Amino acid sequence: MNIVYDRIAIIGVGLIGASIARAAREYGAANVIALYDANPAVRQRARDLGLGEVFDDPEKAVAKAELVVLCVPVGAMAGAISACSRSLKIGAIVTDVGSVKQAVVDAVSAVLPSYVYFVPGHPIAGTEQSGPDAGFATLFHNRWHILTPLPGDEREAYAAAVDQVAEFWRALGANVDLMDPQRHDVVLAVTSHLPHLIAFNIVAMAEDLENVTESEVVKYSASGFRDFTRIAASDPTMWRDVFLNNRDAVLEILGRFSEDLAALQRAIRWGEGDTLYSLFDRARRMRREVIEAGQDTPAPNWGREN
Amino acid sequence: MNIVYDRIAIIGVGLIGASIARAAREYGAANVIALYDANPAVRQRARDLGLGEVFDDPEKAVAKAELVVLCVPVGAMAGAISACSRSLKIGAIVTDVGSVKQAVVDAVSAVLPSYVYFVPGHPIAGTEQSGPDAGFATLFHNRWHILTPLPGDEREAYAAAVDQVAEFWRALGANVDLMDPQRHDVVLAVTSHLPHLIAFNIVAMAEDLENVTESEVVKYSASGFRDFTRIAASDPTMWRDVFLNNRDAVLEILGRFSEDLAALQRAIRWGEGDTLYSLFDRARRMRREVIEAGQDTPAPNWGREN
Repeated sequence: MNIVYDRIAIIGVGLIGASIARAAREYGAANVIALYDANPAVRQRARDLGLGEVFDDPEKAVAKAELVVLCVPVGAMAGAISACSRSLKIGAIVTDVGSVKQAVVDAVSAVLPSYVYFVPGHPIAGTEQSGPDAGFATLFHNRWHILTPLPGDEREAYAAAVDQVAEFWRALGANVDLMDPQRHDVVLAVTSHLPHLIAFNIVAMAEDLENVTESEVVKYSASGFRDFTRIAASDPTMWRDVFLNNRDAVLEILGRFSEDLAALQRAIRWGEGDTLYSLFDRARRMRREVIEAGQDTPAPNWGREN
Repeated sequence: MNIVYDRIAIIGVGLIGASIARAAREYGAANVIALYDANPAVRQRARDLGLGEVFDDPEKAVAKAELVVLCVPVGAMAGAISACSRSLKIGAIVTDVGSVKQAVVDAVSAVLPSYVYFVPGHPIAGTEQSGPDAGFATLFHNRWHILTPLPGDEREAYAAAVDQVAEFWRALGANVDLMDPQRHDVVLAVTSHLPHLIAFNIVAMAEDLENVTESEVVKYSASGFRDFTRIAASDPTMWRDVFLNNRDAVLEILGRFSEDLAALQRAIRWGEGDTLYSLFDRARRMRREVIEAGQDTPAPNWGREN
């Protein structure tokens, strides 16, 4: 087995934190896994699940750790690292799993001691479930993990720190990509933030209709709506923080979405069948590319039982 | 086995037509299954797949059939039945599977002989795939099938015809509901037509961006976007006809969606975290209800392999 670190610390034991703990153990990426969560009930659950050494004090959790992985919502990153930064060991590497990168870079860099290395990251993996029970070891298998090294960090050992974080994620089964933090935020606004926003919006809207009841929506949801409810079941705190912290990129792509939707609305109003057909036909191609790139299953209906 | 009909005819052998043929045979809902499709290549494929007795002439396909099931796009229903209505037997029942009901009721009623019974219907089932090869016998299992009997048909035998169509769908494994055609169109605009429109829109938009490439979108699509590509892979002709034929209900619900999205956009712009959180939290509840109603799998990520 290829042990990458002797000791890591995971701060925040939700779906991602618990999955990292399980994967690091299962694939031998770390000898000792220390865990901390601000919520005492979550710490207890992490103990019951045997995810690693659970600490009630974040400073004790990170002491002696070579790698600290911040697995809290984007808006809580700076507070989480501030609560334990005094006991970070010299030369420790800090990384994170936030879905927004530039805001995390700014907030965490501002509070981090100068003698540690910060290598921001984002695993393109997850499910609609949350909490320590939702974690599983294979979550990162064959998924992309994006690292956004700090362009301004010119210390000689920084490149080696980036390599070591990449090696850790590869040990968990992920493929690692490097990207500029701001570029990450623009790309993810398209592939992740906007899709979630739209799903939240349509599901919340459907609860509020005057002329169609919620039970009708639920009953006939297999005609398309149910797919949106899965994404909309994701953790609300995590997503609130994403939108608050990637505001500009999200607003820009949302403007584009609304503009295109208005054009589609107009084509429906005026009965422009050819416009609709060619747009729908184009959209179909993208599905084939996603499947060919190994980013989704080719099984009809995702292989779910109806 | 509970044979419902001695002879049925299926007009249009795509995903739905082929699934009905397979299910009717497997569950003994019909002794003889006659098939016709306007496309010679599809007829040949239906023969190769052994879906039933395939005819090159629609009049021959429906002759002597007690039940004729129209499985063509909504805009092609009237033409499909006109092409064979002269050879419909007296007292035959005609049904359809269109995703829009009032427009089909109007179009088909106008061309149907007075000596047959028209019982419009819509199975809430499907996959993103199309064509005869995509059909499978269990497609309708535990899914709703909505019948929208004609309010104006007061013939004594009409109620019995409705019952017999319901019995047919129950034999295929579906649960049958009755609904007014216009009500159907409003409810499905919410649960099906709007979700598809949004999925088509976001996927087509993503192909056209100036600052994010198509290959980036595909590569990182597992962060949410890929789910939309599945729905957007549905048959473009079918969906063009849905939007052209359910225009008013779709435009109304689309207006509501855009209004709510504008409010969400404003909350992001002004950093209103509480508004975002409470909306996302509400959306989450709907997922639980969908699962409790048996309308989706509780498995994380639909059980697909990552």
